[in-house]
Parts: sequence; C-alpha cells; structure tokens
Amino acid sequence: MLAARRGWRAPRACWAPRRCAALSPGRAAARLRVRQALAAREPAGGVTVQGWVRSVRSQKEVLFLHINDGSSLENLQVVADPSLETRDLTFGSAVEVQGKLVKSPHRMQNMELKAETIRVVGPCDTWAFPLKTKERHPLEYVRQFPHLRCRTNTLGSLLRVRSEATAAIHAFFKENGYMHIHTPIITSNDCEGAGELFQIETSNEARESAEKNHFFDVPAFLTVSGQLHLEVMAGAFTRVFTFGPTFRAENSQSRRHLAEFYMVEAELSFTESLQDIMQVMEDLFKTATSTVLSKCPHDVELFHKYVAPAQKGRLEQMLKKRFVTISYSEAVEILKQASQTFTFKPEWGCDLQTEHEKYLVKHCGEVPLFVINYPYDLKPFYMRDNEDGPQHTVAAVDLLVPGIGELCGGSLREERLPFIESRLQRLGLADAYQWYLDLRKFGSVPHGGFGMGFERYLQYVLGVDNIKDVIPFPRFSHSCLL
Amino acid sequence: MLAARRGWRAPRACWAPRRCAALSPGRAAARLRVRQALAAREPAGGVTVQGWVRSVRSQKEVLFLHINDGSSLENLQVVADPSLETRDLTFGSAVEVQGKLVKSPHRMQNMELKAETIRVVGPCDTWAFPLKTKERHPLEYVRQFPHLRCRTNTLGSLLRVRSEATAAIHAFFKENGYMHIHTPIITSNDCEGAGELFQIETSNEARESAEKNHFFDVPAFLTVSGQLHLEVMAGAFTRVFTFGPTFRAENSQSRRHLAEFYMVEAELSFTESLQDIMQVMEDLFKTATSTVLSKCPHDVELFHKYVAPAQKGRLEQMLKKRFVTISYSEAVEILKQASQTFTFKPEWGCDLQTEHEKYLVKHCGEVPLFVINYPYDLKPFYMRDNEDGPQHTVAAVDLLVPGIGELCGGSLREERLPFIESRLQRLGLADAYQWYLDLRKFGSVPHGGFGMGFERYLQYVLGVDNIKDVIPFPRFSHSCLL
Repeated sequence: MLAARRGWRAPRACWAPRRCAALSPGRAAARLRVRQALAAREPAGGVTVQGWVRSVRSQKEVLFLHINDGSSLENLQVVADPSLETRDLTFGSAVEVQGKLVKSPHRMQNMELKAETIRVVGPCDTWAFPLKTKERHPLEYVRQFPHLRCRTNTLGSLLRVRSEATAAIHAFFKENGYMHIHTPIITSNDCEGAGELFQIETSNEARESAEKNHFFDVPAFLTVSGQLHLEVMAGAFTRVFTFGPTFRAENSQSRRHLAEFYMVEAELSFTESLQDIMQVMEDLFKTATSTVLSKCPHDVELFHKYVAPAQKGRLEQMLKKRFVTISYSEAVEILKQASQTFTFKPEWGCDLQTEHEKYLVKHCGEVPLFVINYPYDLKPFYMRDNEDGPQHTVAAVDLLVPGIGELCGGSLREERLPFIESRLQRLGLADAYQWYLDLRKFGSVPHGGFGMGFERYLQYVLGVDNIKDVIPFPRFSHSCLL
Repeated sequence: MLAARRGWRAPRACWAPRRCAALSPGRAAARLRVRQALAAREPAGGVTVQGWVRSVRSQKEVLFLHINDGSSLENLQVVADPSLETRDLTFGSAVEVQGKLVKSPHRMQNMELKAETIRVVGPCDTWAFPLKTKERHPLEYVRQFPHLRCRTNTLGSLLRVRSEATAAIHAFFKENGYMHIHTPIITSNDCEGAGELFQIETSNEARESAEKNHFFDVPAFLTVSGQLHLEVMAGAFTRVFTFGPTFRAENSQSRRHLAEFYMVEAELSFTESLQDIMQVMEDLFKTATSTVLSKCPHDVELFHKYVAPAQKGRLEQMLKKRFVTISYSEAVEILKQASQTFTFKPEWGCDLQTEHEKYLVKHCGEVPLFVINYPYDLKPFYMRDNEDGPQHTVAAVDLLVPGIGELCGGSLREERLPFIESRLQRLGLADAYQWYLDLRKFGSVPHGGFGMGFERYLQYVLGVDNIKDVIPFPRFSHSCLL
C-alpha cells in the first residue's frame, strides 16, 4: 500500500489471506474470515471466527457446526464438545467461535476449528425464518425475500461473482488506458426512446407546483444510456468508459428485462473501423470471464453443477475460439434459407427477432456472433452511414450469444457534420442536439463505442435463466421490494 | 493477463506505457498516446500520435504544435517544417501526426515528435469555439459548456483525478475483504427524508394512468443512501461497500450541494465499537489520497498551484497526523466557551451548523475531526442507543474537514430487536420496516457503517470551492444541461 510510505500505520482492518500463515499457537487472538481459515497452511491457536450457522449436528461425543461469513461458498467446520451447545445455537444464528485451527481429517476440507468457546451473538427464530437448514430453495421461492436470499448458497455465489466481475471490468479498462467517467443518471435528453422513459419529479408534497415548475426547469428523465455523454468525454480523453445503472420503463414481466439494470459502456476516438470496436468487445468479454473463472472457481462451479450443467463446456469453447462475424444482409439470407418456419418472416429492413437471433447463433455453431451493418432506417440518428447506397446501411454491430440473444450493441458514430446535421434536421431534433452538433464542429474525430448489459453478461456466464436472479434488488413492473 | 493462459491472443488495444521502450527506428508505425510518447526512454521512428491541437506557433524556419489527447495534463510538442502548415491546422482541431520521437532539447520536456506528416482529422471553427487558445478561462465561464469544458486543463486534470480516485477507492475495499454491492437506485423506502426525495413516474404519455397505477404498484423514489440495503448484505457477507449515485431534491444553489452526487458507503458486521468504523474512514481517506497524490502528481499540482495554493501543505500534514476525536458534548462546550459570536447559539441538543463545524475544525488545529455520540433525538431511527441515559446519545460519528465541513457520516446501527422495534413503533414505521426488523430476528449482529460524499472528498483534496466543478455533468435546481 502506497500510503505506508507516507508515515502512517497500515490499515488495521486488513485481513489479507497471507496473514494466516503468520499465525502461531500462543499469539494473541486473531480474527479470521472463513476464507482465510480454510486457506491457512499451519495450525494456529487463539483464532476467532465469526459468522452464521449453516448447520448444527449434535452427536453424543461431539458437536459439529458449519459456519459461513460470506467470504466464500465453503463453510468452516467447527468441532466442539457437546457441552458447548445451547438452545440458541441453531441454523441461522450468528456466532463467534474461539479456538484452535487444526488440520481437518476430512479429505474435502483443509482446516477445521476446534472450539474452546462458542458465543451466540444473535439468535435466529428458526420457526419464522423462511430459509430452512439443508434445503435447496428454488430461486423463485427466495426471490420473495430480497432481504434474506443473500444468505443462500446460490445468491451468495452469484453476488461474489458479480463483485469480482465488476472489479475485472474496471481493471480491463484501466489497463487499456480508458478513463472512468460517471455519466449522469438524471438527464434532459428525452428523444431516444420516449415511450420507455422514467420521468422525475420532486416527491408528493411538492408535486402540484412541480407540475408547472420542474425542479430542473425542464422535464428530466432517468438515463437509458451514457453514450452521448461518453461521446463528449471521448472528445477530450480519447478512451473512456462508464459502468452504471440505466433504466427502462418497459412494462415487461420477461425473464430478460429489468426496469433498473447495469450497463458497461465504452467510447473510443480516432477509430475508423467497426472491427476495432468489436475487438474491444471480444477482449472485454474474454478477459472478464477468464478472471471470474479463475478468481471464483467454486462459486462458478455451483452454477455449472446445479443450475446450468452444459454451460461450463460452452464457456471454455467460447474462450478458445474467435467470435464469428456476419453482416445483417447475410443474416437475412441465412434466415430466408432456413428450413425452420418463423413467427416473424425474415425480411431485409426488419428487426431481427429473438427467434431469428437464436437460429443465427445455432447456425453459426453456438458461439458468440457479431451481426454488423444494419439497415439505416432501423438504427438511431447517431450511427455512421456506410455510404453503400443512399442511406442503405450503418456501421452498427450487435453481439448475440447462445441462450441470451443480444448481449452488446455498438456502432461507429456519425462524426461528419453535414451527415449528422441533416439527419437531425429531418427528425426535428437539430435544436435539442445543438450541443451534439458542436462536437462535430470543434475538432471532430471518427469514433465509436458499445454497451454491454451487465446482468445479461452474468446470466450468460453462469447460465442463469431469469435476470431477476443476477441483481441484488431487482426492479421490474409491479415490483420494487425494499 | 490471466486470459492469455486460455489460448487466445492478448488484447490488441493494449497501450501500456512500458511498450514505448520497445520501439525502435524502422519498426512498423506505432500509435502512441501522448502520455506514452512523453514517457518514452528511446528515440523511435514510425510513430503516430493523435489528439487535439492546444497551440500552433509558426516561425519562419519551424512550426511548433502542442498536442493533447487527454492521457495527461502535459502536451506533446510537435516540431515540423512550416510547409506542413495548412489553414485547418488551428487551436482545437483534431490531428494525426506521423514522425520520429526524439529527445527534446527543452529542459522541461523529455521527448518531442519531429513530424513527417500532419493530417487534420477534424477542423475547429475557432471563431465559434467558446474556448480560446492560451486563455485560462474561469471555472464559472466553462461551466456553461458542459460538452466542451473537459477540453480545458482544469477539468481535464479534475476528471483524471476523479477516475484515479474511483479506482483507488474500489481497490481499498477489495484489498480489505469488502464485497462490492450495487444497491438499488429506485427504492420504495420513502421515510427517511420525505421532503427532499425525487419521485419516479413513467414518462408523459403514460402519466395519467400512472397517477393511479404506479409502474411499481407503489410510489417509487430515487435513493438517498444505500445504507439499509447494505445492512441486508452485511448480514450475509460481513463486509460490503457500494459506490454509486444518490439524490436530493434540495432547492439549493449552494456551492456544497448537488441534486445528483456520488456516495461511497461501507457496512461492517461483528463491529462493537464506533472506533472500528472511524478507523476504516480514516484508512480509506488516507489510502485513497496517497494513491491519487502518487498517481496524478501533475494533475494535483495544477490545483495546488493555481486553484488552492495552501492545500498542498494541509494535505501532507493531514496524511501524517492522526485524526482528532471529540464528543458532541465536548464540541458544544468548546463552542459555548468560544469568544466568537455565532448566528446560531450553540446548545446541547441542537444540530451543529456550518459556522460551528468551521470553528471546531479550527479549534482542533485544522485537521480532520471526528465528532461522536450525538443526541438521540437528532439522529435517524437506525442509530444505536449508547444507553448513557434514557435515550440520551447514539453511537454516531461525523467527520469534519477544513474548508468543507461534513465529509463523512456514520454510526453503529441498532442491532437489538426490542430497541429498534419500539423506536420504529413510536415513529409509526414498524409496518413499513418489517423487513428491517427481520434482520434483527434472524442472526442479528452488532454492525455499523458510514458514507463519504465523493464530490466533497474531491473538493477537499484539490481545494475546489464549488461542488459543480468536480462532477462531469452537474445537476442542481434549475439546471440539468445535456
């Protein structure tokens, strides 16, 4: 830690795993996380572990406890004299155990804790507790208890993976020279997808006056994307990224949509080819996934064992292979020649439907698939005209992945003033986007970027069917628990 | 990079500074960021640098350009034959320069680029461009141009520091065993500070029906703090943090308030002493600050030279010394004995005003100051009763810093079911917070946490007077530009 050089003591709260090795019998009591206790290489006395009881097994001669503190999927086994058992020592209770860390006789576990004292810090009303010992509760069941489901194995592993993936994504961009930008959550841009926006007002008391006098003087909305603001920043810092919440007021109960979800977005200046954008998408995806697989092997294994058994092989294949690229026009040809009958007939100029995406991914070998160069009229105003015909296609790309469909979307942005100006004028948006035109007047550069849905990314890596199960507190139509 | 082991090629986009050293004359053209070009140790041919022109100086024999691409405060000097000058090569234009990187004869600069070709990628209408060459525009002036101000030295440095500080804060928590949690932005909790909440509705079209049928079935608000949701997670993972946007609909034009700002919040389980919380606050502050000072020396220097000349010494002092702690009761005594006359008379039981905070910080030697143990009735329901009298004080702490006032606030949380239950009942909130009571019924543990205002932190470190100048896109009453 750099700070140590500056003459102040190192953080007291530091529990790095390497400290375990320094423990020795006779030392003052050391507080260890479960993860550290399990990883210790030497026996040690005077150890304190705190956590929640995952199981109690009382035998005549010996009392076994399993303790979990969220630092790992694995529990620490505590071995105690039956005399240490109390009425409050139940599944779900919080305990502090002091004792000796010793080699475990069990093949599956490295260390266990021989208890000298067990203190129940907080009892658990097991009768009322919706989680039951040794039961594997279905994801749908625990979704009813957003304040308790993080104590289950599945959600515990999910949230550890989510935290590690977040760090891996930040690290990827930092190592590649991108600056992190907090793009705004509240925005006055309302033109991109009007029907699906959340609008903001001051709360009830101030509502009536606010109807006439908006807090911000103008109507304000929750952001649907940080892209336009990132473009501002790419005009100064060349490479920028953001990783924050975005919002859609879509009235959907689907397993693929949330009203509040996280997006990773990047924007690169001096980029003249869509290939450069696609390369960053592929690198980001593979780097983050490799990091998660190596940092959270047990947590990922839980999903690949119990939730989505085929996912492990698929992921390993995906990491080895190059992603495949086809054009939108090729995609439509493939769909037209398919023996399968689609609900929506594939036709050049129409959006690809989920059924089409699934077919294309399958057709291309169940690997991630880039579809590029979409019809001009299908895409938003800021996408770059390919000039392969009069307003024929734009340099847009979608990344489709098996089981999920669209994971990322990106494009080159129209950096040429006359092109973007006339398009905004046709849409009647030239006044509202004067500032965006400014970016093309004062040192405009070819640039592009993309966004990746973070929850869909987690769904894909772990094989989780419902997007509500990969976010700590899901928000969707009719539901905003807690 | 871990991914490399898994059999796919390393990211092509990687421009780590160390690659500069490997350049040699005769190699294929290498694209370098300005920061890398400046740090190169050896001359190199075939180098391409892209960026925006910060100055053009045309002499009879030689043309000098300064190029900036946002990777550093310093510009790269380009030396060219005057024949390479064109009409479009102006301040603000975007250029691509190819040539040889050579040792600079100037003492202040390591390397410069001898141009072989200069291509103007995007011209700049300098007459209309609100930024002018070589002018130091006041912060108030550039605030009018949120889409362009990032191209000034001051905002450039600010945003690089902000990005580095963000990474340092994430790193601090990761290294100390905290899990990162995305606490929700939209919440149905409305009880904490009703008057200052933003409420969410679906946008205009759906408004009328939404008045009766809320999108989420219940009224929904923008979060004012992730604390309660972090408490949920601390009950499973022991140590957790969040770093995201929070909102206040405060009708204030003050230089200390924004409607949208960022908070760093942490929550620790099995914590029986307020001292433990304060230790984490102090460690976080010092570690992040040391990292920023060592990673962004030039950017920080710009502020300490031109914006807040006294700040450098103050920060260095602060890093060396322990923070000071006094109790709220002591604080009131100090204020009562002050020779100074206050607008608000200091009285036990009343909130500390900004004038009081300033006096206390000064009285204690202009170092960061913890004030602890506030009156029970001043603080929210979740703070832990100290039991030093009937509902007399709670285990709360505020961290006050010179020039800013309150930077962090924290407390132990009331983990004892009877205490929290009766307090919520008195407030008429027991029904709404049934889930919060559940946390005390099922393995409750002593815990606590704190929040730090990220913009105020940046203001303090850099000595920036107005909070609007430390966030990329400030939102406050009457203003939501872009």
